[in-house]
Amino acid sequence: MSQEPKVYLVGAGPGDPDLLTVKAMRLITAEADVVVYDRLVSEDIMDFVPPGIARIFVGKASNRHTLPQDEINELIVRLAKSGRTVVRLKGGDPYIFGRGGEEAEYLLANDVSFEVVPGITAGSGCAAYSGIPLTHRGLATGVRYVTGHCQAGVDLDLNWDSLADPDTTLVVYMGLTHLPQISEKLIAAGLPAGTPAAAIANGTTRDQQQCISTLAELPQRARDIGLRAPVMVIIGRVVEMAQVLAPPCESGVEEINRERLGAD
Amino acid sequence: MSQEPKVYLVGAGPGDPDLLTVKAMRLITAEADVVVYDRLVSEDIMDFVPPGIARIFVGKASNRHTLPQDEINELIVRLAKSGRTVVRLKGGDPYIFGRGGEEAEYLLANDVSFEVVPGITAGSGCAAYSGIPLTHRGLATGVRYVTGHCQAGVDLDLNWDSLADPDTTLVVYMGLTHLPQISEKLIAAGLPAGTPAAAIANGTTRDQQQCISTLAELPQRARDIGLRAPVMVIIGRVVEMAQVLAPPCESGVEEINRERLGAD
Repeated sequence: MSQEPKVYLVGAGPGDPDLLTVKAMRLITAEADVVVYDRLVSEDIMDFVPPGIARIFVGKASNRHTLPQDEINELIVRLAKSGRTVVRLKGGDPYIFGRGGEEAEYLLANDVSFEVVPGITAGSGCAAYSGIPLTHRGLATGVRYVTGHCQAGVDLDLNWDSLADPDTTLVVYMGLTHLPQISEKLIAAGLPAGTPAAAIANGTTRDQQQCISTLAELPQRARDIGLRAPVMVIIGRVVEMAQVLAPPCESGVEEINRERLGAD
Repeated sequence: MSQEPKVYLVGAGPGDPDLLTVKAMRLITAEADVVVYDRLVSEDIMDFVPPGIARIFVGKASNRHTLPQDEINELIVRLAKSGRTVVRLKGGDPYIFGRGGEEAEYLLANDVSFEVVPGITAGSGCAAYSGIPLTHRGLATGVRYVTGHCQAGVDLDLNWDSLADPDTTLVVYMGLTHLPQISEKLIAAGLPAGTPAAAIANGTTRDQQQCISTLAELPQRARDIGLRAPVMVIIGRVVEMAQVLAPPCESGVEEINRERLGAD
């Protein structure tokens, strides 16, 4: 081995390369011998990997998580043990729905040293680029992140009563597939149907697309404009602030529907 | 005016300058005419402000929030209208307990254009630097951020029943002052007394200090080692992973008390 095996588990943030951390940028541009990345890492970020540095794509279909994760674990251990500095680049933050803990455990069990570099999680990035403060005096005293992903054919197993809290902003990662169910269950659990809600696709990138509506109408509206995964869903009174705080409209960013927001 | 007034509301992340975003670093080092910062922005970060660029400290005592916030709002508007590019630098993320929404509203009301640059929130930074994945298969399906701050002499007004969820990692910002109350109330609401819990001071900086214990014993342990604010409290089964995933011990980082964790 030419050097001590080392793997950096690096958060790439939500998509905009400007939101990489200084450390992530340095690791990608100057220290990596190989970059192992998945489908949530934007092309604009991968463009910073210098020519001649190996890139390995391990993007995985969302309905067959288990086997590929094992293979990814084995791959990064093998690469590190061959003496290369491995940057394992993940969308968002490795420790928030990033399975970074699982990779870290596997590295540890195989005597490969590692370091975790946090990244801006997609929920925070999407919120900022849509004009939605996740907490705000009088509107939300806290924020909660859950995932809307589950195995194909299985119902989402979430504690809807607990999630239906009007004082807490609810951020649902990978929220598109089960959006109708999320909307129905939250309303059934007591969250007002008129609660402002946003669905944001490709947040923080040039392809950001969003719709802002109410909890009741968001599933239909997201279908109407043809939003495609990955989609971040943000539910709560703070979403109404997007009406005033949203950055100037760019192509792809849908106009906010004021009537619908005011209707309930 | 020499140019269009503009204010950047910038998250400085949790403390380690390596965790600044590329954009924040560029704004601080190359674009700001003046940097307005508060007490949660680390000295190591302020060292990147070039000589000759004005720095204005608006650190505020935690028990008199209201008046200073008004003054900060007025200050940044006045600075921007004098034609300077203002970087309003905040610890963590401007839209997570950062009052960024309030400043954005005020800027908008005063016709000052602004841009929000998200930062790594302290909860995520502290977790990564302590070896705690905020979500992890089998241990936590989601994460929740609340603040332990409230007006002096007033009881914390949180929905304890909802917070006492063993499947959700609970992150309490500014959690030191009311830590005994937080511990008692969560246990009374049904969260097991032996739930792993961490208190992390000055997270991600060279002065990081932490103690890891159980929900029941954390207040006493934090007192024993003399932790001082700002302190991030992380409660949930994922905290047990710090025992294996914590980065190598540095001075100031307390040894993990395995006996106590295993005792309940």
